[in-house]
Amino acid sequence: MTHTSETVEALVEQLSKLPTIGRKTANRLAAYILKMSREEVVEIAKAMVAAKDRVVTCQVCFNVADYSPCPICASHRRDRSVVCVVEDPSDVFALERTGDFRGLYHVLGGVISPLDGVGPNDLRVRELVGRISGKPDLTTASGEVAETAEAYDESGVQPPEAVPVEEVILALNPNVEGDTTAVYIGQLLDAFDVKVTRIARGLPIGGDLEFADEATLSRALEGRSGL
Amino acid sequence: MTHTSETVEALVEQLSKLPTIGRKTANRLAAYILKMSREEVVEIAKAMVAAKDRVVTCQVCFNVADYSPCPICASHRRDRSVVCVVEDPSDVFALERTGDFRGLYHVLGGVISPLDGVGPNDLRVRELVGRISGKPDLTTASGEVAETAEAYDESGVQPPEAVPVEEVILALNPNVEGDTTAVYIGQLLDAFDVKVTRIARGLPIGGDLEFADEATLSRALEGRSGL
Repeated sequence: MTHTSETVEALVEQLSKLPTIGRKTANRLAAYILKMSREEVVEIAKAMVAAKDRVVTCQVCFNVADYSPCPICASHRRDRSVVCVVEDPSDVFALERTGDFRGLYHVLGGVISPLDGVGPNDLRVRELVGRISGKPDLTTASGEVAETAEAYDESGVQPPEAVPVEEVILALNPNVEGDTTAVYIGQLLDAFDVKVTRIARGLPIGGDLEFADEATLSRALEGRSGL
Repeated sequence: MTHTSETVEALVEQLSKLPTIGRKTANRLAAYILKMSREEVVEIAKAMVAAKDRVVTCQVCFNVADYSPCPICASHRRDRSVVCVVEDPSDVFALERTGDFRGLYHVLGGVISPLDGVGPNDLRVRELVGRISGKPDLTTASGEVAETAEAYDESGVQPPEAVPVEEVILALNPNVEGDTTAVYIGQLLDAFDVKVTRIARGLPIGGDLEFADEATLSRALEGRSGL
């Protein structure tokens, strides 16, 4: 016990549970919270609980959203012939921030990782195949029925016109798990008339060739393209 | 708007208000919060609000605590002849962690910083003088009456025997504001029969002379002591 207040100590303990927040940062945050107005603190606390209470999983793309289907899936302005496969909702945020992608998403909820005991059945892989095949009448990994049509029926949103998927872009991280998952999904989708691509791996913009690691450099060479 | 959920967006916004938490970390925390159980999130949210609701300022040392006087001021085992003056409650935490200091504290609530518009009257300087002079019958910076005896009367805690303060240790940060505050307090306390010291400034333990900045090195030389 280094604090003179058990309440502060409890707060520091709670804050330390969050990722990227060590004991030192937690102390600093606690000191800041004590200086904030009660209203401000209540607002943060409410936002945290609201996220748990209100946020749902889109039953089409499995992204987090306030409604299902999510605004992207329900949009009439997105290109429905392209589906971008990502690991986590945060990857959707990252891609949306670029403003360059106008297609739909599919959130796997992880990547294949035998070391962590994560296999294809723990991910939304079957649901992806369902979307590509145009027969999304499969039970999801969690046992819920994820029928695109049904998701729309329940929401009362007018579903955009169904369009066959022409391209699946695998936007998975360039590491062992991402590679494994990409290869696995690529093989699964071989059976369908759909183009499967993967986002480029190479030197980051602003990066320096001199300081790039060998794996990145090899991949950058391998992936070279015409001017 | 890069999120598909306004609730998540609101949470990220709220979290970004905290120090050391940028938009990226806020996104990461939000993703983690969505994965936590509702109970865990409620626990964190409650701890934050509880800190605002339950934590009070000790009316003797002005540290944060669950009760006034705080456990340190109320303790019969601390050396009441030594008072360590610090800027913030977090400095008390840091010093208590060493386990080396057995005296009492006095939290100024800041340091003199003309650039930020903070003068001696915004700090608990008068209260410090009150404690040293043995006549702590002054109104505090915030206008409340901070009378040590009264603080004890209200709490019902048996006050430890009053002991005259023999030494005031200024544990202020080694920067311009800390130096200014130290000099100011030193001059104020000149009128009393009390030894005023300041914690040593020099090379940090494990630090490297070669990489130390000149100011630190100068101070380390100046503060050299016998073996």
